[in-house]
Amino acid sequence: MKLYNKEKYNDLGLDTKAPSSGYRALNKDGTFNVHKENVSFFEGMNIFYSLVSMSWLQFLLVLALGYFTINLVFASLYLLIGTEHLTGIYGTTKLDQFIEAFFFSAQTITTLGYGQIAPLNLAANIVAASESLLGLLLFALATGLMYGRFSKPVASIKYSSIAVIAPYKEINGFMFRVVNPKKNQLLEVEVNVNLSLKRANSDLRDFYSLELERSKVVFFPTMWTIVHPVSSESPIYGFNQQILIEKEAEFIVVIKAFDESFSQSVYSRSSYKANEIKWGAKFTYLAKRDDTGLSIDVGRIDDTFEIDLNQ
Amino acid sequence: MKLYNKEKYNDLGLDTKAPSSGYRALNKDGTFNVHKENVSFFEGMNIFYSLVSMSWLQFLLVLALGYFTINLVFASLYLLIGTEHLTGIYGTTKLDQFIEAFFFSAQTITTLGYGQIAPLNLAANIVAASESLLGLLLFALATGLMYGRFSKPVASIKYSSIAVIAPYKEINGFMFRVVNPKKNQLLEVEVNVNLSLKRANSDLRDFYSLELERSKVVFFPTMWTIVHPVSSESPIYGFNQQILIEKEAEFIVVIKAFDESFSQSVYSRSSYKANEIKWGAKFTYLAKRDDTGLSIDVGRIDDTFEIDLNQ
Amino acid sequence: MKLYNKEKYNDLGLDTKAPSSGYRALNKDGTFNVHKENVSFFEGMNIFYSLVSMSWLQFLLVLALGYFTINLVFASLYLLIGTEHLTGIYGTTKLDQFIEAFFFSAQTITTLGYGQIAPLNLAANIVAASESLLGLLLFALATGLMYGRFSKPVASIKYSSIAVIAPYKEINGFMFRVVNPKKNQLLEVEVNVNLSLKRANSDLRDFYSLELERSKVVFFPTMWTIVHPVSSESPIYGFNQQILIEKEAEFIVVIKAFDESFSQSVYSRSSYKANEIKWGAKFTYLAKRDDTGLSIDVGRIDDTFEIDLNQ
Amino acid sequence: MKLYNKEKYNDLGLDTKAPSSGYRALNKDGTFNVHKENVSFFEGMNIFYSLVSMSWLQFLLVLALGYFTINLVFASLYLLIGTEHLTGIYGTTKLDQFIEAFFFSAQTITTLGYGQIAPLNLAANIVAASESLLGLLLFALATGLMYGRFSKPVASIKYSSIAVIAPYKEINGFMFRVVNPKKNQLLEVEVNVNLSLKRANSDLRDFYSLELERSKVVFFPTMWTIVHPVSSESPIYGFNQQILIEKEAEFIVVIKAFDESFSQSVYSRSSYKANEIKWGAKFTYLAKRDDTGLSIDVGRIDDTFEIDLNQ
Repeated sequence: MKLYNKEKYNDLGLDTKAPSSGYRALNKDGTFNVHKENVSFFEGMNIFYSLVSMSWLQFLLVLALGYFTINLVFASLYLLIGTEHLTGIYGTTKLDQFIEAFFFSAQTITTLGYGQIAPLNLAANIVAASESLLGLLLFALATGLMYGRFSKPVASIKYSSIAVIAPYKEINGFMFRVVNPKKNQLLEVEVNVNLSLKRANSDLRDFYSLELERSKVVFFPTMWTIVHPVSSESPIYGFNQQILIEKEAEFIVVIKAFDESFSQSVYSRSSYKANEIKWGAKFTYLAKRDDTGLSIDVGRIDDTFEIDLNQ
Repeated sequence: MKLYNKEKYNDLGLDTKAPSSGYRALNKDGTFNVHKENVSFFEGMNIFYSLVSMSWLQFLLVLALGYFTINLVFASLYLLIGTEHLTGIYGTTKLDQFIEAFFFSAQTITTLGYGQIAPLNLAANIVAASESLLGLLLFALATGLMYGRFSKPVASIKYSSIAVIAPYKEINGFMFRVVNPKKNQLLEVEVNVNLSLKRANSDLRDFYSLELERSKVVFFPTMWTIVHPVSSESPIYGFNQQILIEKEAEFIVVIKAFDESFSQSVYSRSSYKANEIKWGAKFTYLAKRDDTGLSIDVGRIDDTFEIDLNQ
Repeated sequence: MKLYNKEKYNDLGLDTKAPSSGYRALNKDGTFNVHKENVSFFEGMNIFYSLVSMSWLQFLLVLALGYFTINLVFASLYLLIGTEHLTGIYGTTKLDQFIEAFFFSAQTITTLGYGQIAPLNLAANIVAASESLLGLLLFALATGLMYGRFSKPVASIKYSSIAVIAPYKEINGFMFRVVNPKKNQLLEVEVNVNLSLKRANSDLRDFYSLELERSKVVFFPTMWTIVHPVSSESPIYGFNQQILIEKEAEFIVVIKAFDESFSQSVYSRSSYKANEIKWGAKFTYLAKRDDTGLSIDVGRIDDTFEIDLNQ
Repeated sequence: MKLYNKEKYNDLGLDTKAPSSGYRALNKDGTFNVHKENVSFFEGMNIFYSLVSMSWLQFLLVLALGYFTINLVFASLYLLIGTEHLTGIYGTTKLDQFIEAFFFSAQTITTLGYGQIAPLNLAANIVAASESLLGLLLFALATGLMYGRFSKPVASIKYSSIAVIAPYKEINGFMFRVVNPKKNQLLEVEVNVNLSLKRANSDLRDFYSLELERSKVVFFPTMWTIVHPVSSESPIYGFNQQILIEKEAEFIVVIKAFDESFSQSVYSRSSYKANEIKWGAKFTYLAKRDDTGLSIDVGRIDDTFEIDLNQ
């Protein structure tokens, strides 16, 4: 005899307690509204991931700042040793010498080595030899980071900013659409849509996996309208916009695809809250014939027209 | 009670509306006849993918042009600062000085640094130090691109340029063959063949998944003839060449394999239109015995001989 | 008639013979207590793996030592050729000349090339040209290693250091919890828990796959308590702490996940021995509401409170 | 009504025609005895794969030769321009000048740039600037190749050089064993064994998929003996060594695993011919207890002892 029932979970791993009114589990850009505290420095540290994920502007600033700082440090070291142990330093003031040492450092760490300044004694030679090795290693690192930044898998799927409730066959359907704006092909594209609804008079949420008209395509060259038919079995059967808002409905979308360019599996996530759903609207069909085939107007992904819903 | 039936989709994600007579959904090289319009610049941008996908000639031209342009820019900067702040510039005319500055820039950005020309004042030093850092970063980028270009997964499967309808057991079969001309092994090779047929008096197409004699092999060292037996259950049962042409038949082939060299899944796509099918022809068997094993004549992949079809 | 039965294996590939009392098959950090002897040098050698897996301190030491050694070797070569064949060597003693040759080597292998020292005759030129090529190749290697070190997949899952036996519905459950302290998202997280128990009066161990309340989540942004309900079907049904210790119980945990950052499958392993299990304790619920969503206190992952078990 | 039966294929994609007596489809090292002829140059070309797959000795030779050749070419170019347009060339004979130009080229392509030789006129500067760019690109390429060579997935599984027929429960079993001699962990290891037997008086071979006692392990830290129980359902039931040799039996082994170090799927292949099977021998058990756990003597993987077979 079994004392427990293995339940089906549709919460995807999100907390079933709704933390506060108006809480959104998943942001439109696919990030989670969860913060981790008291993560020890080493546990949470993920330098490569940070450097690869930051924006290009931030990344270049970090590099420039690092370059400047390292040269400051080495210029100080050369000054400490004494600039008389470098050939070609002509500055007479400490500042002039520091500036010359600074650029000598820059020439050394980049392995540029013009040679008009060069180390003379043992100490200066040791520092210069160490600096050039450090330069090579830092540059090796920068190379890896550059490659990491570029080859980082990104499922750049574009979602319609709103979803609609539109007639679908004899019933209605919850619909949104997606397109891949990039030139790289996505293959074996799978979509899952789950719905979270807050229980009345409780801080718990229920999660439902929604049946889709179609949950997988092999190719994805055009725009794809994803449809959840609101049959009598749907958890939103008989609902209207008001009920969805009261129940703090959140439609959570997960798309998995294979990016052919770099042979990688990529995931894309987004969500629709109740107020991002248009009732009685249908997406405009956008594919047109042109000389060589089909033409899709990606800029009009949000285009809808009003239409009466089925009862 | 269910108000809708979950239908089986065989269209692979291609549009079921046939955009115009003679339309080909999938080109022989595996690209799609779909164009996306009004993709915003940032959405559609995929620099790494473009640089990694372009031909070697284009790639080298981009590099050479970039190198030339950057040196032009920096030569102008050095001229602006004044070439008297560089040692070893002997040119008396502006043009001569520009040329010398141009090559000084080239020596700096590649971190070559001969040193017969070198920066003297602060401004020149700042520009040179920045240029050498920029050089290293651009070179880091080039390294990543080189690696990306080479390690890009490519399923280099070669298809017979025609398909045939040939006798198969007591019936006939739709057949084409494939071979991997490269030395890297493809493993776990799976093939899917789908057929698109235009409906009479309609702009809609129907898609059918075709039963194959065999849809997967573990090893792929030889040539493989893929066979769709035209049994009474086949969507082309009873058809002749004329009917296939009228219905704008398109056989869409998708091959998925695991490339052992770089541990990557690779996809290959191709298609056969009705006019690329020979009726009453069979592929010549090409494997021969030699001293150490089997020998396959890849150059004769299209060799067929005439044969009477079964009725 | 079948002469043998295909048995179900739950030992995961671990030896079913218990090698000694107190043996632990899997360490808490996921390594195995197995040593391989008499592996021939070439078979066991895995330079890249070693250099990529060692700590950063070890790695930097290896690099510094390698740099030092190579320069020693080339300095000796230049001395052998005669430092009179290098311009700019002013040392009069052998030691001074060796030191100058050493730093010339350093300037050559890093392609720094100040030029105040330069090769004059054929032999010195050949050595210098070879050294700079070697330098480039070693640096290419260092670049690859840097990238390999950083992009190495690591499932940095943090386990509660203890497991608990706590009330679960009307029965009790074996529970532990896990969290991902890093910022990169883990998706499609699957967990398997197997139990090894020593047979009485035998050196054999039996392995059991444990039923879990839930063995997979799609997202993993928060903390996850993994529960094995101790129903009447559980191999530890009716056990107490004493029995688990006598039977040398070892709970072996394997977690598989997809790391979204680098599109990689990652594995994490850990284990709980009988003395790492608290009886009659329950984990404290740690998720709190804050302004923007949920906040998880990772530092309190081991927090429990006492509670009476169900009988 | 179906006119054909979808047959089960066990040939793994190998040709079912046996090309000659004594033919071995799969070599012990996992390569195939198949040659492809008349592959056009571009189709067959796979530079990266070749450079990444060749031995280290070959690879270094290619690099050294390339370096030498490029310097020859550029030295000729500098000579053509006239060495009077380079500072610091003191050679009076053509040969001396050529040698000096050769080493100037080496200093330029490695971006070493000592500067004791430097370009003076426009032509020499253009060549030098082009050469340093070329040097950077070639080096970028070498970096990619180095990384490609090291991170190339290799399933370094070591097979027992012989298989045995040994008693297994009340019947006998076909057995061989495998071990991973490297320190990187293989996970989710799956094995498939297929048998090819030549038909009497025919040039056709039949392929059989063999039932295994166990075909998958999650961990693979120790040695694994793979067993095909020779029950009455086995294709070799009732066979003796003589029959296996007459039928040119070939046991084809495919192992698939996940290499945790680089998050890659790896494949390993090998085969056993009839004369590589010992009848009436059993593998010696090699795991020993030591202080911290188990110790496996990898060097004795082929150790067997004689034993009577079950009838």
